[in-house]
Amino acid sequence: MPFPKAVHRTQDLYRRLTVPQFTVVTGLLVIIAGTLILATPVCSNAKVGLWEALFTATSAVTVTGLCIIDIGQDLTNVGQGVLAAMILAGGLGLMAITTFLQGFVVRGTELRCRLDRGKTLDEFGVGGVGTTFRGIALTATVLILIGAIVLYIFGFNDITNHGERLWAALFHSISAYNNAGFGLWSDSLEHYRSNAVVNIVIIVLIVLGGLGWRVTSDLWSNRKQLQRRNLSLHTRLVIRTSLILILIGTVGLVITESLSQDHFLSSIGWSERLMSSLFGSISARTAGFTTVNLSLESISDSGLLLLMALMFIGASPGGTGGGIKTTTLAALMAATRSTLRGQDDVVIRNRQISDKVVLKAVGITVASLLFVLVMALLLGMSSSLNGEQAFTFLEMLFTCISAFATVGFDVGVTQNLSHFGQLVLIVGMFVGRLGILLLLSAIWEAVNKDRLHRQNRIGYPREDLYV
Amino acid sequence: MPFPKAVHRTQDLYRRLTVPQFTVVTGLLVIIAGTLILATPVCSNAKVGLWEALFTATSAVTVTGLCIIDIGQDLTNVGQGVLAAMILAGGLGLMAITTFLQGFVVRGTELRCRLDRGKTLDEFGVGGVGTTFRGIALTATVLILIGAIVLYIFGFNDITNHGERLWAALFHSISAYNNAGFGLWSDSLEHYRSNAVVNIVIIVLIVLGGLGWRVTSDLWSNRKQLQRRNLSLHTRLVIRTSLILILIGTVGLVITESLSQDHFLSSIGWSERLMSSLFGSISARTAGFTTVNLSLESISDSGLLLLMALMFIGASPGGTGGGIKTTTLAALMAATRSTLRGQDDVVIRNRQISDKVVLKAVGITVASLLFVLVMALLLGMSSSLNGEQAFTFLEMLFTCISAFATVGFDVGVTQNLSHFGQLVLIVGMFVGRLGILLLLSAIWEAVNKDRLHRQNRIGYPREDLYV
Ligand SMILES: [K+]
Ligand SMILES: [K+]
Repeated sequence: MPFPKAVHRTQDLYRRLTVPQFTVVTGLLVIIAGTLILATPVCSNAKVGLWEALFTATSAVTVTGLCIIDIGQDLTNVGQGVLAAMILAGGLGLMAITTFLQGFVVRGTELRCRLDRGKTLDEFGVGGVGTTFRGIALTATVLILIGAIVLYIFGFNDITNHGERLWAALFHSISAYNNAGFGLWSDSLEHYRSNAVVNIVIIVLIVLGGLGWRVTSDLWSNRKQLQRRNLSLHTRLVIRTSLILILIGTVGLVITESLSQDHFLSSIGWSERLMSSLFGSISARTAGFTTVNLSLESISDSGLLLLMALMFIGASPGGTGGGIKTTTLAALMAATRSTLRGQDDVVIRNRQISDKVVLKAVGITVASLLFVLVMALLLGMSSSLNGEQAFTFLEMLFTCISAFATVGFDVGVTQNLSHFGQLVLIVGMFVGRLGILLLLSAIWEAVNKDRLHRQNRIGYPREDLYV
Repeated sequence: MPFPKAVHRTQDLYRRLTVPQFTVVTGLLVIIAGTLILATPVCSNAKVGLWEALFTATSAVTVTGLCIIDIGQDLTNVGQGVLAAMILAGGLGLMAITTFLQGFVVRGTELRCRLDRGKTLDEFGVGGVGTTFRGIALTATVLILIGAIVLYIFGFNDITNHGERLWAALFHSISAYNNAGFGLWSDSLEHYRSNAVVNIVIIVLIVLGGLGWRVTSDLWSNRKQLQRRNLSLHTRLVIRTSLILILIGTVGLVITESLSQDHFLSSIGWSERLMSSLFGSISARTAGFTTVNLSLESISDSGLLLLMALMFIGASPGGTGGGIKTTTLAALMAATRSTLRGQDDVVIRNRQISDKVVLKAVGITVASLLFVLVMALLLGMSSSLNGEQAFTFLEMLFTCISAFATVGFDVGVTQNLSHFGQLVLIVGMFVGRLGILLLLSAIWEAVNKDRLHRQNRIGYPREDLYV
């Protein structure tokens, strides 16, 4: 029986993978399967070849939302359904895995050594893995359905065909909760810029998805007595950082765009300008829907730089969004404040945090920054050598951050890139969605399990350094 | 005797200052004195009022080199001499103070608690403070004189007047070793772009000044057996990081400018292009001389961004340059590498360094970044509100980094700013030269000596954070 035996072997191989390796392999398999399915005539028209299908599948599984095809035109209803399924798999799947991995941080155990042993599963959460995964699925289903219903009844009123309206409501609700930013219309949500219901529903779904399941379930279980002291440090910190970032982004966009006379936001009324700035500030971390056209002509340089900073920071860990994460930023900020105050320990909200957390935050931030810069350099060099349409460095950097942080904002670059440039974006989306740390730990585990352990045991002599 | 009594009291007050406070107060006093002296007709012509004198004095004492007057035309020979004296005071003075403060890091003692006690002076270096300060002065004198002699004989051959040539050689040698970037000609050193002698002499002086006295004296005392093992970690790390940065900067500038067809460096021959890129890469950290005109027209966007990164990083601690310092960058990079490799400790060159060093590096980097952004925001808002000549955000950010990191590169912005904008630059130069940490510790010490001590003793409960 060669076939069952092969299946058995594959299963065996799969079981031996660590969680990071499982994540990488599964991600790649889903992308390959999605590519093959999307390229069939059942799912798409003739414009969508294997390359377009690969880009779209990667963009969907990594919940980025960058497109080189028109989702509404080039995909059939079946294709759009497959796309929605891939968004759910990518968004909720990684949400579940990162929430699972967070369990190890809580216990303070060495992540790498313990992941490949089955017994650690019991240590996860109060009621084991099953309960948590069911909780994530239930939360997502309820929120997406509520969002879809509100969008159907109050939001997309201008769509007369009821079936079409229902699908649009469901698709955008799924896309928003998963911070995917895919839409059925080529102008994203610009058509609904002044529609308060659509703005609010999408904003709420983006924020709840971005906060992550641990935070929303912490909030929900404390809903009757919502006091600060009942919430965990993680929940309080994530909510506080998110609120500050939303505020800074909104006020910043209003200021930069109002000061620059000849850009789009300064030409519309104050209430709409405020709502668009709020939407842009939230969508930049890292949903990627737009209600205002993004380009060098419509947004000022300083506005684009602000958006780039927001995109790079991104959503919260264990959520559906990307970026270096709000807690990483908070750890860096706390370290900065402690240093400036001359304190010995890093203190956040009257809780001392380990120096190791700050080291990890430094690693994530610097590595992500370098990765994005290399991406932009590759794009720049390829477009110069090929004599393609010349983009400014700002546009290319913006696109690379958008891909790496899985935002999906586009200033008109993606479609006009060569295949090599699009490949850079594909790799960037995949690496950015998994996170450099997860990816590297998957690789380290495969390459040499023992060397690292040995390295950690080598004691190097300590020496001081003047900084 | 009221006057001697007042002098005595002032002396008494001065003695009670801690080293950081002494540095701030002395810096301010030298700037004020320099302003009053430069504004007199003995030193300058009618174009130099109190405001211009203040800006020039600050720029000189902080060894920045930003100018709103023409040093060669608007200052008399006496004025230029006073300027050189201020450069020496600012450059070598802070070099001595930071080298002094580094002594405390070596001993691992708590800086803040011990600075105000005279007895710590003996702990500094091998032979006490006096020897170190004499060493710094001697090194500077020898190097500046050698530089001046070479420039006089082989460099500035085109100047026929011998007195003029001697003064130009001495002034530029002083300016280069102190990383000040002041020149006597309005086009900096563009006139000598293809003069190899001038390029090499200025480069060597910049680099030696930027490495700092500890490194140069370490190299000098090991000159007979220059092996890596004899040098301290600090020396090896500073030299290695500096070399890597010089290489990245040179190669980066060659690439960015060669790829962008219509910018200056791509229009000149390869040998000159390489020399100009090397000079630009070194001068950006943080001397500020130019052999190529800097503007949005002559340099590409990506080239300007590369220069901004180099400027922000700057020279080495205990040197005459500014920026966040090479060791700060090295500490962040080492933390990144350790995190990515999954190591528990931060290891540089087989030496384990304390987590606290990384925390300090994070504090310096993030605080400097935020300070520069606030400066750029203030410049942008003031120029928008005043309806001044509109600069792009990139130009304003470039100018703010140039001031904060005491580089002195100018893309044509400084002279065209309002007094408010120039005030932002003055404050930026002063804060940037002292460093945010030194300035804040001076303030903390003045405000409340005891509170911090108490704060450090409060034990906060530890809590984990997901990053
Ligand atoms: K997205
Ligand atoms: K300078």
